[in-house]
Amino acid sequence: MNEALRKDADRIISGSLQAVLPDEAVKRALQDFKPGSGKVVLVAAGKAAWQMASTAAKVLPHLDDGIVVTKYDHVKGEIPHVACYEAGHPVPDENSFAATEKALALVEGLGENDTVVFLLSGGGSALFEKPLIPGEELQDITKQLLACGADIVEMNTVRKRLSGVKGGRFALAAAPAKVFGIVLSDILGDPLDMIASGPAYPDASTCEEALEIVSRYGLKLSDQAMSLLREETPKKLDNVETQITGSVRELCKAAENECRKLGYEPVFLTDELCCEAREAGSLLASIARSHAGSGNKLAFIAGGETVVHLKGTGKGGRNQELALAAAIGIDGLDGVAVFSLGSDGTDGPTDAAGGYTDGTTVSDLKAKGMQIRSYLDNNDAYNALKAVDGLIVTGATGTNVNDVSVLLINR
Amino acid sequence: MNEALRKDADRIISGSLQAVLPDEAVKRALQDFKPGSGKVVLVAAGKAAWQMASTAAKVLPHLDDGIVVTKYDHVKGEIPHVACYEAGHPVPDENSFAATEKALALVEGLGENDTVVFLLSGGGSALFEKPLIPGEELQDITKQLLACGADIVEMNTVRKRLSGVKGGRFALAAAPAKVFGIVLSDILGDPLDMIASGPAYPDASTCEEALEIVSRYGLKLSDQAMSLLREETPKKLDNVETQITGSVRELCKAAENECRKLGYEPVFLTDELCCEAREAGSLLASIARSHAGSGNKLAFIAGGETVVHLKGTGKGGRNQELALAAAIGIDGLDGVAVFSLGSDGTDGPTDAAGGYTDGTTVSDLKAKGMQIRSYLDNNDAYNALKAVDGLIVTGATGTNVNDVSVLLINR
Repeated sequence: MNEALRKDADRIISGSLQAVLPDEAVKRALQDFKPGSGKVVLVAAGKAAWQMASTAAKVLPHLDDGIVVTKYDHVKGEIPHVACYEAGHPVPDENSFAATEKALALVEGLGENDTVVFLLSGGGSALFEKPLIPGEELQDITKQLLACGADIVEMNTVRKRLSGVKGGRFALAAAPAKVFGIVLSDILGDPLDMIASGPAYPDASTCEEALEIVSRYGLKLSDQAMSLLREETPKKLDNVETQITGSVRELCKAAENECRKLGYEPVFLTDELCCEAREAGSLLASIARSHAGSGNKLAFIAGGETVVHLKGTGKGGRNQELALAAAIGIDGLDGVAVFSLGSDGTDGPTDAAGGYTDGTTVSDLKAKGMQIRSYLDNNDAYNALKAVDGLIVTGATGTNVNDVSVLLINR
Repeated sequence: MNEALRKDADRIISGSLQAVLPDEAVKRALQDFKPGSGKVVLVAAGKAAWQMASTAAKVLPHLDDGIVVTKYDHVKGEIPHVACYEAGHPVPDENSFAATEKALALVEGLGENDTVVFLLSGGGSALFEKPLIPGEELQDITKQLLACGADIVEMNTVRKRLSGVKGGRFALAAAPAKVFGIVLSDILGDPLDMIASGPAYPDASTCEEALEIVSRYGLKLSDQAMSLLREETPKKLDNVETQITGSVRELCKAAENECRKLGYEPVFLTDELCCEAREAGSLLASIARSHAGSGNKLAFIAGGETVVHLKGTGKGGRNQELALAAAIGIDGLDGVAVFSLGSDGTDGPTDAAGGYTDGTTVSDLKAKGMQIRSYLDNNDAYNALKAVDGLIVTGATGTNVNDVSVLLINR
């Protein structure tokens, strides 16, 4: 491994993540917020819910009641006036449903002078859910969508209609109370109706689209589910105001700043990366081969969320796969590294946030008798990267604003 | 269609292609060339051999003798002092061998004040060949290598040793005469020992590697062939100077220049693009979405050669598929276009060089009742692009330096 490059990568990673932590983002969003004259209740859902709620509770002038629904092991302590629940993610479970019912009970019956501070972050789709069909069927449909390679837009278009809170239905339940939403965005381009499936945002997707997805992927749904797909979601919500914060664009900007601090000239490519992970890695490597040796210190930055079409049975995540694929293309290049990570600290079903590779990775693997292509073919980036100290491990970061991938060229 | 952007695209295309035509490329390479005091002979091999030789004959101060070996139907007229031969491609035939013998006869016996101007272009591997084993066995070995899935590097490592001209052996035969090589590159990264198997370039591959390939794939070779594999190729050639010209890098640079002329700030990404075509299109679209509307006129440029894994039965080529895939990602964006084309004027089995799309393409298709995704899924980019005037048609250009893809953002 190129120790100097790895050190640069680690500094860029920690600096960038710092800038998009929910605390900072929530404080910024609440700066000019004035609640109504009535009650103020807080509902926070998502992987960053506890951290967002904890900050909001400190910043808000007063708070009457509140609920946090987050992932298991994500509640870090008590918050005054707020009940904290942990639940299943990425697959919702009974605890998700129970906590969501409590949130609905909290906002139903509020008057027009009351305010709901609604804090949303990634993972909200699973954590904040009231299924209108049996939980088992919802889980089955989610699994079918994942297995057929449906993207998040398609998944949400279907699932919104099977839910009592998604697609604007939570805000509808809270009316006439005002809903002030703060959204920590984890979807490219910040489409508010897609983040956590938009519980407090008018829904842009239509019944027609949902039915088209079912037919395209040949999904198997019960009659009950099919009839729900035909019930339209709210297209207009007068009681809602929303602020987006901590988006992947901010993550990319933060990465640019950190690169600049280390003397790299940053080239911002995109914050809407959405192609196949290994192809993005290949393309970053192509850029590397054409720019390495130019004598410039360059950093190409791409934020977003790639996809992986699983073929193998190995262990990994999209960021690790991107980095491993890039390693093939930068093999032997001096002063070139590629790293990619999920800002939430979790890449796929692993304990790593992402992966780091450089011009030595292929030969380091070979020295251990490991062929990089076999690992890539088997979607087993985790074990390949682990063997050459290429894993990026941050632990849970408390934020989730998608991924960032960086190509460093230092000569 | 955005007519203004299409006009810009067409101007960039014609200007860039002009700059990498063999005529221009050979002229540039010979600009500062001074032959020795003795004889000057010319040997040209490859698909562009006739055109390169024809230009060189006009530019060189004097020329005593010469030979062209090119593909059937590629000799376009007489060149003074130069004998032109046509031969088999991609499979070499007796005419390849006979012409190559004549070229060897021409350079053997030259003195150290004499100069061989050696013009090489794509296809040279088949066209310029002197097998050291019977032609039938060479063809059989080639078939075995293809059948077992050997890559081009492995194929050349074996075949160089079975040849009297490859792997630097032609330059060795010409010594002590000076060899001035001009190479029209069609392999990404311009590896001089790989282009036409490097007749005038020191060979980086070794006997050990050749033998290892034979044993790995279980190839069946005669004793004569096996003993040839143990004869090393030249690792050093003092009489050779080589200029690469008309490579995809020059194509990208020419595109940069043309973009600049039209007021676009060019951003050169890579000249070694090699990922899946539609993923490259998706990535260019991601870049577009993050930069459109910034008020700058930008042009992102990527050269190389993408791949297509066919699933459908439609008509198209990698460049058309890249452009069509990009259209989905730039749908609705104002002032954004993506185009991609093969420099030889032929993209896949079609009469188009490539494809052009912009923010209106998806809706233009929809207006004709055509769903873009169906065409992409069926690898039928040609018919989709044809319907919306998105084909780029140049006719055969007479050059072949891979592809170039450009993203234009004009606001």
